[in-house]
Amino acid sequence: MKTQETKKLNGLDTSQMFETVGAIKDQPSLARFEFRASNQWKSGGENQSEIQGFYGAGREDDSREEPFVFTAGEPPVLLGANEGANPVEYLLHALAGCVTTTIALHATARGIRIEKMSMKLDGDMDLQGLLGLDDSATVGYEQIRMNLDIEADCSDEELDNLIAFAWEHSPVCSTVRNATPVSLGRS
Amino acid sequence: MKTQETKKLNGLDTSQMFETVGAIKDQPSLARFEFRASNQWKSGGENQSEIQGFYGAGREDDSREEPFVFTAGEPPVLLGANEGANPVEYLLHALAGCVTTTIALHATARGIRIEKMSMKLDGDMDLQGLLGLDDSATVGYEQIRMNLDIEADCSDEELDNLIAFAWEHSPVCSTVRNATPVSLGRS
Repeated sequence: MKTQETKKLNGLDTSQMFETVGAIKDQPSLARFEFRASNQWKSGGENQSEIQGFYGAGREDDSREEPFVFTAGEPPVLLGANEGANPVEYLLHALAGCVTTTIALHATARGIRIEKMSMKLDGDMDLQGLLGLDDSATVGYEQIRMNLDIEADCSDEELDNLIAFAWEHSPVCSTVRNATPVSLGRS
Repeated sequence: MKTQETKKLNGLDTSQMFETVGAIKDQPSLARFEFRASNQWKSGGENQSEIQGFYGAGREDDSREEPFVFTAGEPPVLLGANEGANPVEYLLHALAGCVTTTIALHATARGIRIEKMSMKLDGDMDLQGLLGLDDSATVGYEQIRMNLDIEADCSDEELDNLIAFAWEHSPVCSTVRNATPVSLGRS
């Protein structure tokens, strides 16, 4: 019993984690993933995505019996009826979730126990960009701020090092911070 | 009755839309928005975001009585239990939703009626980046492909023009395509 318990840190199975890392070191192609979503427009600013399958670790994943379904909408001030959070808000959730998971993962790899972790995010936008009213306006977020509240059983220096590492190694944070190619075609 | 019906195109109230655009032209500061989220780590790769308030159109929005709540998780192959879609999948939803809404908005502004619209997205990732195993690996998405299925009452040329405009003017698409500053601090 005790042996099994000590294999978990921050809710992650450390044996499985180090086995996964070892397998990828031996065969780097296992690290190749393709993630997917499909989206259906409903009306106005309302649309719905389904997310289920993906490719990774050398095979097609079949672990999800049902798709995850998410509705995007807009608030009344943006011509909607709050059918769901809006897409730029979903982006903040994706960013928060990814940085949080990246911190949890690398804390575990470093043997750091996280006592608690939460964050608040905000981002600035000038809708003149979206509306095409001012070509000098930034179309996307001008900047996004993440403010983390975290306690862990390590020194402040180790914690700052872990956070900086996560900022660098979170896939969503990196996708946003860097210019990522996006193609949009039609069938 | 007829007058009211003709004011709606693609589910959007065109009078309200042109009023909003006019108000922003008169007072560009109305276009300034701040979107927000808060996130709480649960365990391992599971965390939860709440999204409710935002600032925009010159005031604090109070249209949402309850927050939207989203759970991020990971599939078993990524050490989770499918507690929710994972953050990089949420990013695809944010992207799909934003491009779709941007197309609907500008189609309406151009008097184009959309008959149907859906899309499929996929994106490539090398998890050696996240894991810190290979410094030459791209940490975020290497590229994201969006494939649109759309029918509208306009020419192919007008449709291609609309799609190219949306790619350029969608806030999430622009945030991803361009390098967007993201700060991560702790309190």
